Amino acid sequence: MIKATQQQTKAHNRSLLLQLVYDRQQVSRAELARLTGLTRTTVSGLVAELIQDELVGEVGLGPSIGGKPPTLLQIVADSRSLLGVDLASHEFHGAVVNLRGQVQYRYSIPLKGDAEVDPLERVYELVDGLLPMCKSPILGIGIGTPGLVNSEQGIVRYSVNLDWRNLPLGANLKERYHLPVCVANDCQAAALAETTFGANKNTPNLIVVKVGRGIGSGIVLNGRLYGGYDFCGGEIGHMVISDEDVDCRCGHKGCLEAVASSQAILTRVQAAFSSSPVLSQMVHSPQEVDLQVLINAYHAGDTLILSELKRIGMYLGIAFANLVSVLNIHKIVLAGSLVVGASDGIIPSAYETMWNRSLDLLGKEMVLETSRLGNDIVVLGAAALLMQAELGLV
Amino acid sequence: MIKATQQQTKAHNRSLLLQLVYDRQQVSRAELARLTGLTRTTVSGLVAELIQDELVGEVGLGPSIGGKPPTLLQIVADSRSLLGVDLASHEFHGAVVNLRGQVQYRYSIPLKGDAEVDPLERVYELVDGLLPMCKSPILGIGIGTPGLVNSEQGIVRYSVNLDWRNLPLGANLKERYHLPVCVANDCQAAALAETTFGANKNTPNLIVVKVGRGIGSGIVLNGRLYGGYDFCGGEIGHMVISDEDVDCRCGHKGCLEAVASSQAILTRVQAAFSSSPVLSQMVHSPQEVDLQVLINAYHAGDTLILSELKRIGMYLGIAFANLVSVLNIHKIVLAGSLVVGASDGIIPSAYETMWNRSLDLLGKEMVLETSRLGNDIVVLGAAALLMQAELGLV
Repeated sequence: MIKATQQQTKAHNRSLLLQLVYDRQQVSRAELARLTGLTRTTVSGLVAELIQDELVGEVGLGPSIGGKPPTLLQIVADSRSLLGVDLASHEFHGAVVNLRGQVQYRYSIPLKGDAEVDPLERVYELVDGLLPMCKSPILGIGIGTPGLVNSEQGIVRYSVNLDWRNLPLGANLKERYHLPVCVANDCQAAALAETTFGANKNTPNLIVVKVGRGIGSGIVLNGRLYGGYDFCGGEIGHMVISDEDVDCRCGHKGCLEAVASSQAILTRVQAAFSSSPVLSQMVHSPQEVDLQVLINAYHAGDTLILSELKRIGMYLGIAFANLVSVLNIHKIVLAGSLVVGASDGIIPSAYETMWNRSLDLLGKEMVLETSRLGNDIVVLGAAALLMQAELGLV
Repeated sequence: MIKATQQQTKAHNRSLLLQLVYDRQQVSRAELARLTGLTRTTVSGLVAELIQDELVGEVGLGPSIGGKPPTLLQIVADSRSLLGVDLASHEFHGAVVNLRGQVQYRYSIPLKGDAEVDPLERVYELVDGLLPMCKSPILGIGIGTPGLVNSEQGIVRYSVNLDWRNLPLGANLKERYHLPVCVANDCQAAALAETTFGANKNTPNLIVVKVGRGIGSGIVLNGRLYGGYDFCGGEIGHMVISDEDVDCRCGHKGCLEAVASSQAILTRVQAAFSSSPVLSQMVHSPQEVDLQVLINAYHAGDTLILSELKRIGMYLGIAFANLVSVLNIHKIVLAGSLVVGASDGIIPSAYETMWNRSLDLLGKEMVLETSRLGNDIVVLGAAALLMQAELGLV
């Protein structure tokens, strides 16, 4: 509420113009002045800066409205390289992307069978592999990691998967690479990816629920990630939603992620392997059943897997009913290879359960859909975080 | 993001100054200029207006810091009358309050046994009874009502209790009384009361859970009520949280309010009346057991009621675990005469369940407390809504 300094005003106006150029695809200086209420002189000065910085370029002339045809401006998508890293999948996955979220280079490091190596060393290895592939000035490094993360300080407070406690990941990376670094929970990053680069671009309010080895969600309200008291908004994986005697790695029983994660369904399907003729034809032993095999077997008509998918849908539906009842939100987007690869096995039962467990007026209006961003969703979210932090682009 | 007009800037600055005077209790013009960055001339002009409107008054001189001692300003609490109405209790309850939430007059209309009278007539009767008691200019009428409410349009979309569907309550009252009117869900109003006038004044983020005939919550984020997609944020009463075969009036089974409302415990205690020696000494028949009798019997050591209260606590704990997991919020305030009157019977088991059903790092940091605003909480919330809408006071 305090009056802004001239410096702040200028930075605010510069971000505002950059955002408009980003959103409008092509726009003239005159239109920018009209849209913002800023003077043409102010607009011209700030645009000159943005062109100088190569973030914005002139791309030709627009239609004349009775005078000289206006010069059109657009974002130079390839003017910056954003380095996105996803530590939440079965391998560490990274990519170099541009300002439009187009992936220019991917690099992954499998994690299997090297429990004695510090995951942080693997992160360095990944970033070391990505850096030489950047063809333009690097905006920074964005990291999506499983666990509870203090995004402001770049600290991973607790990650079961990676066995990290209070790791200053952001500071470590900054010190090593001398680049801006953003760190966020992987599901929160995924949510931002969906509203920045996904099919729900510019949807102000939505929840992305990511089902992988763990389950979590990212909540976007008014175009911004909802952090909560200490950045754990959307941590729904450990809501207890089942009375079953299934241990969760958090120490409780019946948590959402203990019964509905991709690991949970794999374990159950492996245990029932012998009763599935489809699976037995595809692989020789339960140990060979991985997520892709499971999805393939489902599409080949395996009824055991269908019933397990329905069960996952039912558990997710309970969580969705809770989300809808608390947040009165309109859309949930599902991410993760299991739910995207076998969505028609999961989503109908998720709808049914959600409807049965929430007020009709709320539940019936909900839309469930799957993300189209695939395995890059966290990487893209990490890049979107950087764009917010470094350029003010939402 | 569009540049503000001069008019908007002036209104914004006026609200800003009023808010500071309200928050600081006593403050000088010089301090206001320092705090806002506005010029002394601007501050003096706007303060003169506020004094002219009698919202602000001069109250004497402050300590000199080396020159003329400064004149101190404060809110004139009694300069406006706010009419608050609560349609969610067993009787329609209204009050005239001042700008500090001090209740100056209360008036209630019992609803028992007149099902054939349109509740809207009772609302008019209540307001008619309150209006003559206002001793200063009336800021407006604020209403907290059960059900789903479109606060922007003042429409009650659906209220089971009052049998209203798409009732333009705001427009009706405006037409009849020619005063500003605010309408909100009772639990949302209660939440605002707590952060405006309650012990959690200026707590930016909290949830108020109100347990009465129904159960709902109001979510305050950044000092503002969280509305959600269509103003139903916090409608947690119909989350299904129990497998029990208990019908809810919404059509589903096992909803939070079907198993944990004050009505739910009354029904169960009445059914088990004969097994309670304490109750049998206090009243002669199950029908005579009302909420106050039940609370009295609990404090007299009735073990039946204690076990029922624990059960309520357990159900509430499930809801709280969901709230915490989704919103990562730090504090839940309980309201409603049952939870306030028998809090030590309910809260320990609510804590236990909440801890067992959410991630330790989230649940263990949660604080549960009871509101001290008593039966006026919704009335005060309705007044707080008016202050936000009419004076820009948050």
